[in-house]
Amino acid sequence: MAVLDGKTRRFSGVFAPVITPFGENLSPDAGRLITHCRWMLSQGVGLSVFGTNSEANSLSADEKIELMDALVGAGIDPKMMMPGTGCCAITETARLTAHATRLGCGGVLMLPPFYYKGVSDEGLFAAYANVIQRVGSEDLRIYLYHIPPVTNVPLSIGLIDRLVKEYPTTVVGIKDSGGNWLNTSAMLDQGWDDFRIFVGAETFLLDNMRRGGAGCISATANVNPAAIVRLYETWQDTGAEGQQQQLNLIRDTFGKYVVIPALKACTGHFSGDARWDIVRPPLTPMDTEDKDTLISALNNLGFGMPGLMAMTEPAA
Amino acid sequence: MAVLDGKTRRFSGVFAPVITPFGENLSPDAGRLITHCRWMLSQGVGLSVFGTNSEANSLSADEKIELMDALVGAGIDPKMMMPGTGCCAITETARLTAHATRLGCGGVLMLPPFYYKGVSDEGLFAAYANVIQRVGSEDLRIYLYHIPPVTNVPLSIGLIDRLVKEYPTTVVGIKDSGGNWLNTSAMLDQGWDDFRIFVGAETFLLDNMRRGGAGCISATANVNPAAIVRLYETWQDTGAEGQQQQLNLIRDTFGKYVVIPALKACTGHFSGDARWDIVRPPLTPMDTEDKDTLISALNNLGFGMPGLMAMTEPAA
Repeated sequence: MAVLDGKTRRFSGVFAPVITPFGENLSPDAGRLITHCRWMLSQGVGLSVFGTNSEANSLSADEKIELMDALVGAGIDPKMMMPGTGCCAITETARLTAHATRLGCGGVLMLPPFYYKGVSDEGLFAAYANVIQRVGSEDLRIYLYHIPPVTNVPLSIGLIDRLVKEYPTTVVGIKDSGGNWLNTSAMLDQGWDDFRIFVGAETFLLDNMRRGGAGCISATANVNPAAIVRLYETWQDTGAEGQQQQLNLIRDTFGKYVVIPALKACTGHFSGDARWDIVRPPLTPMDTEDKDTLISALNNLGFGMPGLMAMTEPAA
Repeated sequence: MAVLDGKTRRFSGVFAPVITPFGENLSPDAGRLITHCRWMLSQGVGLSVFGTNSEANSLSADEKIELMDALVGAGIDPKMMMPGTGCCAITETARLTAHATRLGCGGVLMLPPFYYKGVSDEGLFAAYANVIQRVGSEDLRIYLYHIPPVTNVPLSIGLIDRLVKEYPTTVVGIKDSGGNWLNTSAMLDQGWDDFRIFVGAETFLLDNMRRGGAGCISATANVNPAAIVRLYETWQDTGAEGQQQQLNLIRDTFGKYVVIPALKACTGHFSGDARWDIVRPPLTPMDTEDKDTLISALNNLGFGMPGLMAMTEPAA
């Protein structure tokens, strides 16, 4: 499950970077996104809309604002939302972050500015500080987003430490998508007060929980939410290791392919709606042969997406 | 000089990714940008506004549109403009490109979508094709922007070949900022019809001209425009090698520092306007000691920015 602490307004639990449905003209389909978000919530998963696996960086700022408004307008609880708002330009990041905060989102997931490479911690600190000042809200809760395999702009422990000390009630957590447990472990060692450390893959969920981490924000939570939530809720039970191994089997099955088209192909198959196959360039849809192999492998593992087929889209 | 061929509407010559002036509040300063563009034009240099060295990726789409409108509104000839319009999202790229085309810009410099890594040529082709279709104008002229040290998304010869063949009157050139002459040379070998190949640094200008290239689009053209233009115009003369060596000395002097703050510090010094020092995070301004060393080294090389001090800002 995903939980927002009522007092400190800090998240814990399992979140999905919610995949974004497109129409034939490549426009985002708000209706199907609402439906998928409702299914995610029904499975106990929080909504990191506009994450990397949401193709968020293939959406314009205007498109993201329209989708946020549509979700909240449809009655999706903003307190369960942690939209990604980090762009290359601090002005764009501030605009999206202010909008999310005004809508009442429980938090935002914030990439560093990621175009320029080899930038200093001083410069990255200034970028985050500037956005916080521009937003100017005590309600703002930022989860930093460390994903160097994609951004090539890592967030160092020293930078995080400086941000946490300067903005202790605003910079409240991080998603570590570096894929390197030693880095997550080093962050867990810092003892930052009530700082919420999420791993970027459920592969590290049990390790993270054992060390006092907050949960995970994982691509695969789009398709395998209930099992990931179950491990989160029962990680202290004896069967936890076995649960972790089962989660890894499913994740590794997706890991053989480009993950976003694979997640969408899977969702299309189990929802009965092939429009889910559509991705925005520069991504390309999964080809039919790979899709058949993926679905067959998933079936062999007894995988399913129960309840998804029964979800009905909101009236247009 | 920079030239737009009247018949084919293709550029050649020397262009600068024009540095962007900011105010104390980090807002772009259109007035000072207009002034710097006028100086560039007076030196014979074309205007690649919104290039990497313009901190373009630290500006929002709205800010870029406002600046384009301000430049053209102030009487800057759009036919001498090749604004950078490539963003992560094809919808944002299409919006900026359509706007530049409507304003009458001679061309646009277009990054590929650069957030997602390891994408296929098929996906990159689809991204460019989609933008071309969305803009839907016969006036559009695209210069591809290959800068893998920053984007980590290279444009392969195969991809360029496919784009040139599919859109022969639209995809008309490239800026190669890979820093690898062998790649530029391989592109020059392709024999694409009237395809304009610009090197991303004047270091390769003489080599490029000797092989039939179109010129260069270079950061240093912001500060050393006349000398670069002179080599472009006289590359067949006996003194060309010596000219190239002199250009390299100046470029290498800047190359010892993070280049954008160094270009701005230099411009601030020679214009007498210290506000040029301001950069947007994640960049940081040049520190005083480095600035003193840079200016001293430039003075020793007899470097100057003649005429810059005399440029007056447009009335507000």
